Amino acid sequence: MRVDVALIPGSNPIKDMSDRTAVVIDLLRAGTTIVAAFSNGCTEIIPVQDANEAGELARRLGGGCLLGGERLGYRIDGFHLGNSPLEYTAEEVGGHKVVMTTTNGTRAIRAASGAHKVAIASLANLQAVAAFLKAEGRDVLVLCSGNDGGFSLEDTVCAGALVDALDPEGYNDAANMARILYRHAAKKIVRFISQSEHGAYLRSIGFGDDVRFCTRMNWSDVVPVYQDGRITAVRIEVAAPEPGES
Amino acid sequence: MRVDVALIPGSNPIKDMSDRTAVVIDLLRAGTTIVAAFSNGCTEIIPVQDANEAGELARRLGGGCLLGGERLGYRIDGFHLGNSPLEYTAEEVGGHKVVMTTTNGTRAIRAASGAHKVAIASLANLQAVAAFLKAEGRDVLVLCSGNDGGFSLEDTVCAGALVDALDPEGYNDAANMARILYRHAAKKIVRFISQSEHGAYLRSIGFGDDVRFCTRMNWSDVVPVYQDGRITAVRIEVAAPEPGES
Repeated sequence: MRVDVALIPGSNPIKDMSDRTAVVIDLLRAGTTIVAAFSNGCTEIIPVQDANEAGELARRLGGGCLLGGERLGYRIDGFHLGNSPLEYTAEEVGGHKVVMTTTNGTRAIRAASGAHKVAIASLANLQAVAAFLKAEGRDVLVLCSGNDGGFSLEDTVCAGALVDALDPEGYNDAANMARILYRHAAKKIVRFISQSEHGAYLRSIGFGDDVRFCTRMNWSDVVPVYQDGRITAVRIEVAAPEPGES
Repeated sequence: MRVDVALIPGSNPIKDMSDRTAVVIDLLRAGTTIVAAFSNGCTEIIPVQDANEAGELARRLGGGCLLGGERLGYRIDGFHLGNSPLEYTAEEVGGHKVVMTTTNGTRAIRAASGAHKVAIASLANLQAVAAFLKAEGRDVLVLCSGNDGGFSLEDTVCAGALVDALDPEGYNDAANMARILYRHAAKKIVRFISQSEHGAYLRSIGFGDDVRFCTRMNWSDVVPVYQDGRITAVRIEVAAPEPGES
């Protein structure tokens, strides 16, 4: 298996993705929030770019459909849910569809749509995604969502954790670097990610608990898979849980 | 002092560079070649984007002006010099101007032209550049040239070495990551850079000696400075040479 990582949106080195399984990472917070939602019984997530488009679509889909998303980290006015994984509880999202719009994650998910399949990874479901990718058996392209078009330390750490779990024979320079970064950060991951630019920003606007939650590893067996404009969940049995990392 | 790193061309997070000292890095090979040229008595380097433009300019500048540059790593047909630092000897370039065009480096140098000053760093002149930046006293923006618009492991290692030497109070996530990468690679830097994508490519087309040469640290006191379309050299006395790193 070969694993290539694109650190920044638009820096994807793979022109033809059709033979690849793509993995989208937006650790703080959309990716983790999507995993939390499906782990708590959400039935489907529809990612859209634009807040107005989201509102319209939710109305069209009718009563059971919730609206989720953020701008600058805050819940969008009039939406049921923001972008905090802690909001997506079984009480809130169990049995519901969610139309979701976030700054970076939604864009990256759509940018990956040329791949054979598109999975969403976070630290929460890392081993499940690794097992899913091994079962797929294709080469992998990992797309970091980044922060406002720029580099994201936390997405790169998560990408590196995935490279480390897959231990592929082939990888590009960015994958190699991501793995080195993850190994550097692994033993102090809460602090490391809390001190990243976006981690510090989220803490500064009152989302410190979210940041901490997003660093918890391997508590979910859900692999969100994007296809034809919708995200649904696959559950993957992982051989053995990782001890003591949460 | 604050140091921000842009890992990939176009990902520069600093909109207004006018108060910054910019540092351009293209380790394999243009940056190292420029340092080698000035260390061997070259009087001026004029970076241009296009090979035809280079030829025309060299003709206009007259007899003493040499033409240097590469495409896909190879010397451009009809040029005096390619992009190998080992070619830019005192015999070849001493007392001469060089009009130079390379794939990534030339572009990055021009992209930095909005900064207060623009210096060119390589591992060869790392301590000299660090001393120059400290003397300037401004915040620093480090621009990695990258490979064909994508991430460059070797430029990032060199950026990280500079961050490590400056030990700034403030830095962005990319600078933090570059420093972690450099510290990981420092003790095996020849092997690490030789195994990078571009290092491996250069070795495959017969430039293994160049790659090795480009990993030698702190043998030059030259700081190439770009201004108004021309690069000239400043010589910086560095307090103490770094022992045993070459």
